Amino acid sequence: MPERRVMTVGMVCVDIINYVVRFPDEDTDVGSNSPLEVPGGLGNRCLDQQWCRGGNASNSATVLSLLGANAEFFGSIPQGDLTSFFEEDFRRDRVHVDRCPRLAARTPTSCVIVSAASGTRTIVHSNSDLPELPADALRRLPLREYDWIHFEGRNIANVNKMVEYVRAEREKNPELKLTISVELEKANRPELDTLFSLGEVVFISKDVAMSKGFTDMESAVRGLKARTLPGSVLICPWGELGAAACLADGSVVTSEAHRPPSVVDTVGAGDTFIAACIWRLRRGDPVNRALRTACVVAGTKVGVKGFRPLPQLLKDSGLLHE
Amino acid sequence: MPERRVMTVGMVCVDIINYVVRFPDEDTDVGSNSPLEVPGGLGNRCLDQQWCRGGNASNSATVLSLLGANAEFFGSIPQGDLTSFFEEDFRRDRVHVDRCPRLAARTPTSCVIVSAASGTRTIVHSNSDLPELPADALRRLPLREYDWIHFEGRNIANVNKMVEYVRAEREKNPELKLTISVELEKANRPELDTLFSLGEVVFISKDVAMSKGFTDMESAVRGLKARTLPGSVLICPWGELGAAACLADGSVVTSEAHRPPSVVDTVGAGDTFIAACIWRLRRGDPVNRALRTACVVAGTKVGVKGFRPLPQLLKDSGLLHE
Repeated sequence: MPERRVMTVGMVCVDIINYVVRFPDEDTDVGSNSPLEVPGGLGNRCLDQQWCRGGNASNSATVLSLLGANAEFFGSIPQGDLTSFFEEDFRRDRVHVDRCPRLAARTPTSCVIVSAASGTRTIVHSNSDLPELPADALRRLPLREYDWIHFEGRNIANVNKMVEYVRAEREKNPELKLTISVELEKANRPELDTLFSLGEVVFISKDVAMSKGFTDMESAVRGLKARTLPGSVLICPWGELGAAACLADGSVVTSEAHRPPSVVDTVGAGDTFIAACIWRLRRGDPVNRALRTACVVAGTKVGVKGFRPLPQLLKDSGLLHE
Repeated sequence: MPERRVMTVGMVCVDIINYVVRFPDEDTDVGSNSPLEVPGGLGNRCLDQQWCRGGNASNSATVLSLLGANAEFFGSIPQGDLTSFFEEDFRRDRVHVDRCPRLAARTPTSCVIVSAASGTRTIVHSNSDLPELPADALRRLPLREYDWIHFEGRNIANVNKMVEYVRAEREKNPELKLTISVELEKANRPELDTLFSLGEVVFISKDVAMSKGFTDMESAVRGLKARTLPGSVLICPWGELGAAACLADGSVVTSEAHRPPSVVDTVGAGDTFIAACIWRLRRGDPVNRALRTACVVAGTKVGVKGFRPLPQLLKDSGLLHE
């Protein structure tokens, strides 16, 4: 039997990433040749622009593949002007997409503005008409070929039903060895809360933790653990402060962040953290080691544009002692 | 002989226009489903997103065609993921592009954020590697088929040489009846100043006028007229205050702005103004009438998304008494 796959379920979109000198003032026009000095103040300039395949699940699948996993993305792939862009990009990163629905639709698009001055990334995203995966989307898939399924926190009602289906299949077929993980990323979406009790591994973002009133990562994972299933692990990355996890026995472990030489591109840093965590947990590492690895991989990613330099950088740096 | 063409020379790009509730705060993530109310303040949302063919010259050619002119765009067309998007869009708007160089390159892209709260449009534009038109680009064209050539204010050195060539051809061939117009849009680009003396009709933006120290449109056109060729007309639109022109004899004429019921989309309003001016001047209207028409057409455009509703709206409103 071939190596099992790890599957990430969610969205793929195009990220149009604009690297600017500083976040633009409202009503200005920033171009590739804009003056950097203007009478009365500082100018601005768009230093570079990249069109990248994006979306949380799509990004995490990419990083899993770059780390050597047999990774699959599962989500609707829009058929339109950018069809071949998506197909070629997935192929280049060796991410399986053979089981994805392909639907005629406008391309979900994120316009991202990355500021060199402040290291921030500001996102304006639109998904006009690409349908989300239906509730029965997993029924056609050969579940025995997977050992891990990760769900991006979107399309909540259907994700609940998909997870329900996987759990039921697991109970019926003890030979299915499948771990379920979920991500809660967006704050202020009450419907997301149903996801807490879906996975054996639950990732929550700093934004979600803060929207629940927590101001540090240890309190967040300790305070929110009760919402998860018994036996599960709750993990929360907290930017430059590192990450914390609350284990099944209620104990909390943490890891420091890894700081790159300079902050170049934070787009997809959270997706990278998740991918690296899953990569290590999937091969049986303890949670504290997985956290440490995930902090190193995510911190390394922040120091470079995109994901593709990661394998070489991690190899050269010797940061991952395998 | 078929009807002569009016040609606009410049750039085509894709404008990804995001209609948001308000201009985003730095480091936020605004999606199509983002909450509008969040603890402690107002949320935001991306209400709609349109991928449009953009670029000043490309927009002006579109509006000229929609107004009934035999319009041509002349500029490099990038060959890549969006090739068929551009070709189909030009065809749909009946803009000739049969003489354009087609070059393999990344697609010049503007990410535009239109705020419903303030009516502003904020632009981040990148042109990574699409070459500008070469200095001899017009030499292959049958100039006798045109009666007006308008140059966008970019690629300055080569535009200077292109205009030089057209002037020389006009002198050699008196049967060439060709008007030259130019646009100076971007402020704080000293090299743009060479364009003042290139056209029989010169358009300058409010930004350019203000960067030269002028605070109202009449003073701007009067004060800058000396930089233009003898016999030329200098025109300056000034947003909601209307537009002014300084004629060959030094006299100044103005027009009030036309206010749409609501400000929906200011993207391309300046390009619309220029197109409508050219449309009327080209058929021999006096400058004051052309200004008035251009203010009506541009104001009408600001009240709708994109350009395509213009012909019907102008017809229905009876604002243009032809």
